Amino acid sequence: MRRELFDIPEGVIYLDGNSLGAPPKHVAERMQEVVKHQWGTRLIRSWSEGWWEAPQRVGDRVGRLIGAAPGQVVVGDSTSVNVYKALMGAVKGTERTEIVCDESTFPTDGYIAQSVASLTGLKIRAAHPSSLDLTEDTAVVLLNQVDYRTGALHDMKALTEQAHAVGAQVVWDLCHSAGVLPIELDALQVDFAIGCTYKFLNGGPGSPAFIYVPKHRQATFENPLSGWNGHREPFGMKPSYEPDAGIARARVGTPDILSMLALDAALDVWDDVDLAELRQRGLALTALFREHVEKLTNLEVITPDQRGNQISVRCPDARNVMDELIARGVIGDHRPPDVLRFGFAPLYVTDEDAIKAAETLAEITR
Amino acid sequence: MRRELFDIPEGVIYLDGNSLGAPPKHVAERMQEVVKHQWGTRLIRSWSEGWWEAPQRVGDRVGRLIGAAPGQVVVGDSTSVNVYKALMGAVKGTERTEIVCDESTFPTDGYIAQSVASLTGLKIRAAHPSSLDLTEDTAVVLLNQVDYRTGALHDMKALTEQAHAVGAQVVWDLCHSAGVLPIELDALQVDFAIGCTYKFLNGGPGSPAFIYVPKHRQATFENPLSGWNGHREPFGMKPSYEPDAGIARARVGTPDILSMLALDAALDVWDDVDLAELRQRGLALTALFREHVEKLTNLEVITPDQRGNQISVRCPDARNVMDELIARGVIGDHRPPDVLRFGFAPLYVTDEDAIKAAETLAEITR
Repeated sequence: MRRELFDIPEGVIYLDGNSLGAPPKHVAERMQEVVKHQWGTRLIRSWSEGWWEAPQRVGDRVGRLIGAAPGQVVVGDSTSVNVYKALMGAVKGTERTEIVCDESTFPTDGYIAQSVASLTGLKIRAAHPSSLDLTEDTAVVLLNQVDYRTGALHDMKALTEQAHAVGAQVVWDLCHSAGVLPIELDALQVDFAIGCTYKFLNGGPGSPAFIYVPKHRQATFENPLSGWNGHREPFGMKPSYEPDAGIARARVGTPDILSMLALDAALDVWDDVDLAELRQRGLALTALFREHVEKLTNLEVITPDQRGNQISVRCPDARNVMDELIARGVIGDHRPPDVLRFGFAPLYVTDEDAIKAAETLAEITR
Repeated sequence: MRRELFDIPEGVIYLDGNSLGAPPKHVAERMQEVVKHQWGTRLIRSWSEGWWEAPQRVGDRVGRLIGAAPGQVVVGDSTSVNVYKALMGAVKGTERTEIVCDESTFPTDGYIAQSVASLTGLKIRAAHPSSLDLTEDTAVVLLNQVDYRTGALHDMKALTEQAHAVGAQVVWDLCHSAGVLPIELDALQVDFAIGCTYKFLNGGPGSPAFIYVPKHRQATFENPLSGWNGHREPFGMKPSYEPDAGIARARVGTPDILSMLALDAALDVWDDVDLAELRQRGLALTALFREHVEKLTNLEVITPDQRGNQISVRCPDARNVMDELIARGVIGDHRPPDVLRFGFAPLYVTDEDAIKAAETLAEITR
């Protein structure tokens, strides 16, 4: 849809945008401007010329892509750190006794949930989104909208309602869904959401993650990482922490400006993207790849119909097969023990890429 | 000492390296290489071509500047997040009842300490480094080596011994001392240290902070932010968190590679710097500025003789005076209510800068 805006090396079919998005062409130039002019020439003055507010400003840009009205998303820290903020915020003061964690989610969410459980005395229970068995003991459910291994898409509306029906809160991890399909956090009354920006949003390696705290939860949201950037008067140098009234209370320390402004630049390519159209292209690309894989190989596609922008294929010797694919210019990745993952970012992946990738996979595994 | 390596704009005397260091000239070019080649051409492959290990590799480079042998420093996250890790690690399992926090430290340290106290049930007590009154109730003391307002340098050796004498641990904040003077964390048996890299280390705006966990504490250090980057087998995708055996357990989520590699580039200018010589130049520059301020103005210098690379001057109407200084090309900053701060980074500040800055201050306040 926007391939001309991206730098994709000659001869490469890049199907790993679900792990690290490709760089929009203009990001390199923007980085020069940031390093040479903003940092080099303006020096400390740049903090009052746009840097300080960048986490909220870029947060609002992400917000538009996930159905969050302005003032509810802030960018900064890593996904893991934001999972921690969201879960600690969700269980604060609860008398409920369990945290339910999506057993199919990317492991870091579970690791952080274990730490939160251990610190707060709650129990942790792993469950699949298809059988959460929530009760009035459940304080919060941590769910991933798209399964990082299989590419399965979970039903955000139904699962959010399921949590709310027993009075539990829900934290959605959008790492594999932001930039994939229309998401309606506000409309679905999601309690918290977090996600990374370096996959389908193309923010760059390790670009800062985001957290969504809806307006009506902000006044009671306690950030366990009560750093000075979240203070209501950060330059007041007050001895006591008093959180900002709004989303800035989810900030912690000084934001990593170079990574943040690379993301800011990368988000330009989304400015006039219609997410419904994007979603159709993503479904078409993954369907096309799936069809060719099933026609040309004996491999099992483990991605269900309800899916994100990813097709996962069970394949013996997955690691070596992926090495060979990469050697032939088809870049995906693998997850142990036997899964090949192929991500389809509609902004820069074409139908020809999808067909050629399936053909190459067939050649290697035949 | 290395001014030719830095980009300082024509006509600017830059005395705010204690807040945001100036960029070494080659950082812009390195960023191009990182964005265009590492991210753009190598794409996901760069994760196994140096990115994954960057937090430890760059950590070792910082370690050399703070007296830490390799394998004990990791770079990532913000200072506030690292204060949290260090304090939570220090109080884990303690039966002692109080956290003592340097009342003169930069506020974020105290804010985070308050959160740690509140989560763990310990009490927090603010005290000045000159009268800590530690007891066998003290679990940990959080101290800043250089006072961000006055520039006062505290005695790391004496204060560390004072803490250890009652069986307390000590966490040192090196934000205003790393890159200022020789620091001997290993030799002084410091328990934990953290610090930022964007002040005297010139890592760039919001460049990632660091944490020092000495070898002998690593096996028992529990990182409350148990993200997948700290796992002993991060790509094993195991359901349970098992920390890395070494310093990598202090890692959390995916590191912000652009900011990290800008810092990496910036550290090149330190490669052959003799820290004892640097210290002498810092003392000479601050003495020269102080002497001229005291000779030419009626303003009170509040920085004591035991100092970092900073001279602080009490000045009525500090905010407007600093605005006028900046308008005349002398860039420092102010801290409420009435303190002007001038930082002297010996790598790029000259004697002429120090004299001219004092003269300009005198012109404005006479």
